[in-house]
Amino acid sequence: MALVVQKYGGTSVGDVERIANVARRVAKRHAEGDNVVVVVSAMSGHTDNLINMANSITERPEPREMDVLMSTGEQVTIALLAITLRNMGIPARSFTGSQIKVVTDSAHTRARISDVETGGIKGTLANGEVAVVAGFQGVDPSGNITTLGRGGSDTSAVAIAAALGADSCEIYTDVDGVYTTDPNLCPKARKLDKISYDEMLELASVGAKVLQIRSVEFAKKYGVPIHVRSSFNENEGTWVVEEDDSMEQVIVSGIAYDRKEAKVSVKGVPDKPGIVAKIFGALSEENIVVDVIVQDIGEGGKASLTFTVPQTDLSKTLDVIKPVADELEAEEISANKEIAKISIVGVGMRSHAGVAAKMFKVLAAEGVNILMISTSEIKVSCVIEEKYTELAVRVLHDAFGLEGPAPNIE
Amino acid sequence: MALVVQKYGGTSVGDVERIANVARRVAKRHAEGDNVVVVVSAMSGHTDNLINMANSITERPEPREMDVLMSTGEQVTIALLAITLRNMGIPARSFTGSQIKVVTDSAHTRARISDVETGGIKGTLANGEVAVVAGFQGVDPSGNITTLGRGGSDTSAVAIAAALGADSCEIYTDVDGVYTTDPNLCPKARKLDKISYDEMLELASVGAKVLQIRSVEFAKKYGVPIHVRSSFNENEGTWVVEEDDSMEQVIVSGIAYDRKEAKVSVKGVPDKPGIVAKIFGALSEENIVVDVIVQDIGEGGKASLTFTVPQTDLSKTLDVIKPVADELEAEEISANKEIAKISIVGVGMRSHAGVAAKMFKVLAAEGVNILMISTSEIKVSCVIEEKYTELAVRVLHDAFGLEGPAPNIE
Repeated sequence: MALVVQKYGGTSVGDVERIANVARRVAKRHAEGDNVVVVVSAMSGHTDNLINMANSITERPEPREMDVLMSTGEQVTIALLAITLRNMGIPARSFTGSQIKVVTDSAHTRARISDVETGGIKGTLANGEVAVVAGFQGVDPSGNITTLGRGGSDTSAVAIAAALGADSCEIYTDVDGVYTTDPNLCPKARKLDKISYDEMLELASVGAKVLQIRSVEFAKKYGVPIHVRSSFNENEGTWVVEEDDSMEQVIVSGIAYDRKEAKVSVKGVPDKPGIVAKIFGALSEENIVVDVIVQDIGEGGKASLTFTVPQTDLSKTLDVIKPVADELEAEEISANKEIAKISIVGVGMRSHAGVAAKMFKVLAAEGVNILMISTSEIKVSCVIEEKYTELAVRVLHDAFGLEGPAPNIE
Repeated sequence: MALVVQKYGGTSVGDVERIANVARRVAKRHAEGDNVVVVVSAMSGHTDNLINMANSITERPEPREMDVLMSTGEQVTIALLAITLRNMGIPARSFTGSQIKVVTDSAHTRARISDVETGGIKGTLANGEVAVVAGFQGVDPSGNITTLGRGGSDTSAVAIAAALGADSCEIYTDVDGVYTTDPNLCPKARKLDKISYDEMLELASVGAKVLQIRSVEFAKKYGVPIHVRSSFNENEGTWVVEEDDSMEQVIVSGIAYDRKEAKVSVKGVPDKPGIVAKIFGALSEENIVVDVIVQDIGEGGKASLTFTVPQTDLSKTLDVIKPVADELEAEEISANKEIAKISIVGVGMRSHAGVAAKMFKVLAAEGVNILMISTSEIKVSCVIEEKYTELAVRVLHDAFGLEGPAPNIE
């Protein structure tokens, strides 16, 4: 008898028919004798409707009240799923974030989980009932309703699985698992049977949308095995787990791309200490997240600084750095949205040399110019012109042997 | 500086424009220096949508989960109203029933309030903020979400006003107040300036839809003055208050009618002890509420029993009493939906004789046959043929001098 936490996203619970599908899946597991905790999101579209209502009042609704509003989305889903399960003869009991409690800090609309009380859920499971839990939401120490931000239901599910000491956390989605790269871009993409937390973190951070980064961080911290799988079939998906020896054999596990960043260059600034801090300090104050950063020294002691930011933050970025650049007597500011960031990820890089060099060579052979480079222990990212995105992904997928069913050992 | 509880129903908060109207009204009162607690219902139509979703799953959704579902309705409204108030520069803070807490028993979908904690609201008011409260909902001692049943927001408002020791509870609705009778039926109907709790209770129990009975019971028990008024203008409405001497001068305060009952007769039953108990015991077990009851002894020691039930319960009633009537060897069961109950209500009846006789005389003079009669200390009800409803209301309204601006003193 296993204790399993299942999480279903908004598409999987999009209407009462789909909720019935979820209920049948839960019922099957329950009938097999497992203890089941189901974490659900708001029905797809529901959250957007709520946001639109609030935005029709004001562009900047009070965050505390937005959380009161948004949290009704999952509350509707848990009630409908519990009603459906009960109607099928499966004992079930719903819990809001406040009822559990999923304790968070007070950062409304982007709260972080600090504790999960498990008494209520454990009591329900001990009664042989299914616990149906609202994802995405929690309660702060003063009793205010909080939400975790978009995609927070993954984090809810993993945090609850960690607190319960669950055997696994199943994340149901509309794809079969984690792929070597986006199958829409690269027909040779292959579903991975397993991947390490660190690789998943790197892939998520560079554009793979399967799992929320915070949920993977939680899973890694508490050692919760995640099973990413489809809610539309019974296939085995991808296990996200602790790194093991076999993973080291695989140099590159996946390739991700991100076309939602923009590149900003500040050229001709004096090469003196504190310049970088000045620019990035100003951006940080505006909560603009800077990704890849490259600094190089040109002629005459002048430096140029190039970095990427989300395209949605580009105009704000330019507003912020203009006065700073003026103050620094920079010669030029330029921006470019037509870029893509291509990343290869794999724990095998730690023990294999020449992986980055191979990536550069493969891209160069296709005439793809590399604009920026950034590396971590298990990742190499290259910023290239956007028009080469598909080409780059496909040639790298081939070059690192990702299409094969066997591990790509060099 | 007064402490006022305002309650706005589903029509008054039906969309964001109407919510803005409510917010302006609240803001005005707040600007005058009063402490304001606003209790709101779900946006009109919202609750029905939720019920329809649940009913598309099953006709009998689990009551506990229905409450989880339904309570999202008011939660959406409190969030939107608080967002609107904050956007207007009025400090405001929303509270769900669980957050306050409005403690109820565990009778899901029709819970009764046992206690209202006021710490949170008082703290909010002390900060100069408006408290925006979800009506209709509460929480049981185990932390389960409960709802009070349709119209429960009135009861929430009065209970919260009682717990806070508010100076008054304003119930905003789409009419100007309590009328001597339904203005749609009788053009001479006049708005009452004030009415006693007992009269309001009788009027509500016999078909006047302005206030929920339980809210009036609460107001009477705790001496909360209720001000029923329109959310669409600034007119004074009707005060529902303790009885005072001037009220005794008025014999009849209002006339109500109810066309939603059906009359059932069981004829030719043996006139023996325990017969009535047998029939009504069976109905009670099915939660069928019996209203007017008349028993009379015919020839040969046989009795006939006539009573009214809600039309919606008629077929169930007949199913229930058929076997009982067979067992009692009753001669005949008959039913009639084409009836109406006309009631005159007034505390002056206590000190004035002949009120019922006058009612019968007035109806007889118009050829209206009286099928059943029922009286209380301050009410006389006659069941008549439905087709005479308007005629009966109008002639009684005239006969008891209700149209005049002055009290109708005999």
